[in-house]
Amino acid sequence: MKIIIIYLCFILLTSSLFAQNLDFIVLNAPDTNRGLPVMKALSQRASVKEFDTTSITLQDMSDLLWAANGINRPENGKRTAPSAQNAQDIDIFVFNKSGIYLYNANEHILETIINKDKRQIFSRQEKEPLPAIICLLVSDISRFKFGEDSLRLEWAAMDAGIVTQNILIFCASVDLVSRPRAGMNKEKIKELLKLNDTQYPMLNIPISYKKD
Amino acid sequence: MKIIIIYLCFILLTSSLFAQNLDFIVLNAPDTNRGLPVMKALSQRASVKEFDTTSITLQDMSDLLWAANGINRPENGKRTAPSAQNAQDIDIFVFNKSGIYLYNANEHILETIINKDKRQIFSRQEKEPLPAIICLLVSDISRFKFGEDSLRLEWAAMDAGIVTQNILIFCASVDLVSRPRAGMNKEKIKELLKLNDTQYPMLNIPISYKKD
Repeated sequence: MKIIIIYLCFILLTSSLFAQNLDFIVLNAPDTNRGLPVMKALSQRASVKEFDTTSITLQDMSDLLWAANGINRPENGKRTAPSAQNAQDIDIFVFNKSGIYLYNANEHILETIINKDKRQIFSRQEKEPLPAIICLLVSDISRFKFGEDSLRLEWAAMDAGIVTQNILIFCASVDLVSRPRAGMNKEKIKELLKLNDTQYPMLNIPISYKKD
Repeated sequence: MKIIIIYLCFILLTSSLFAQNLDFIVLNAPDTNRGLPVMKALSQRASVKEFDTTSITLQDMSDLLWAANGINRPENGKRTAPSAQNAQDIDIFVFNKSGIYLYNANEHILETIINKDKRQIFSRQEKEPLPAIICLLVSDISRFKFGEDSLRLEWAAMDAGIVTQNILIFCASVDLVSRPRAGMNKEKIKELLKLNDTQYPMLNIPISYKKD
């Protein structure tokens, strides 16, 4: 009997570990000494129109997401990006050739949402070359403790702008290029990601290495 | 006759120069090599509640404003902060103990608006100590070439968030502390600055040196 229980526990444990391996990507610790001096990065900040398709390395992805909205004060869970009421309303969905992932800042991992390339959803033209990744910023306005919906949406836009600029400055400080875009098919995206009524796609940012 | 004309021209020229000297402050060229590495600045980014009253040096003010929304590509007038439709809708008003100034990014100067300390307008309590400066971000939504007002206001909030994060990251990269605030008496501020119907106060950011 004991052997059967131990065996069952073993099966449960290994299957749960296996399932977890399929469900998320563990990011590297951020390199907090990295990047050009801030004023140098700002002098190079520019929106580009042409993107490379080369995959982003794990370290670059890890640093990018932490820079965007990672936890920089583990003692209280506060972020690189401030937010109205410290609501931490902005979630980052990463679209790349393998699928769609949600950045979980608490665990500093990428949770798999869909195992399929869906970058095309942001393209206006069928044959536009697809950038290595697209970061989609979604605000969940239910996280604000108070406020009318119109005010919550204003804060959501501000908070999305703040996270956007973290991304753009990080990109300018390393070998990445980017561009913020407010325009997208929000209805299609909400359906794809199964967003609820309080989740609003705000901005999307294609990112890649510099095109040669 | 000639001598009188030359004399009159001299009077006009000197009085106009004198008037200009009273009307604006010429900022220093930005030091584009300055500041901590971007990831280091992001690791130190935090909103503070206590501010010092020591005046900000001209170089710090010059770098701060250029970082916030200065021209980083003189060939086309583009900025450190992107904006929807490149409308460059965000203006920065600087409040300090001497008065209120408008940042003119094209000339990289501060235009004097009012020669009087008006920082108190942002205080909730009468006796709150006043931070060295407060940057007020105002969007002029008439600069967007198209779009319904509701969409223009969403872009305005995003663009204000973007400029805000330029300021916060710059502060974190040098010896300055800051905090973004969406709450303020907008009606009073619009009246004080004589803003028109398309100009919206979005966010204000108190800034000072670190308190000892």
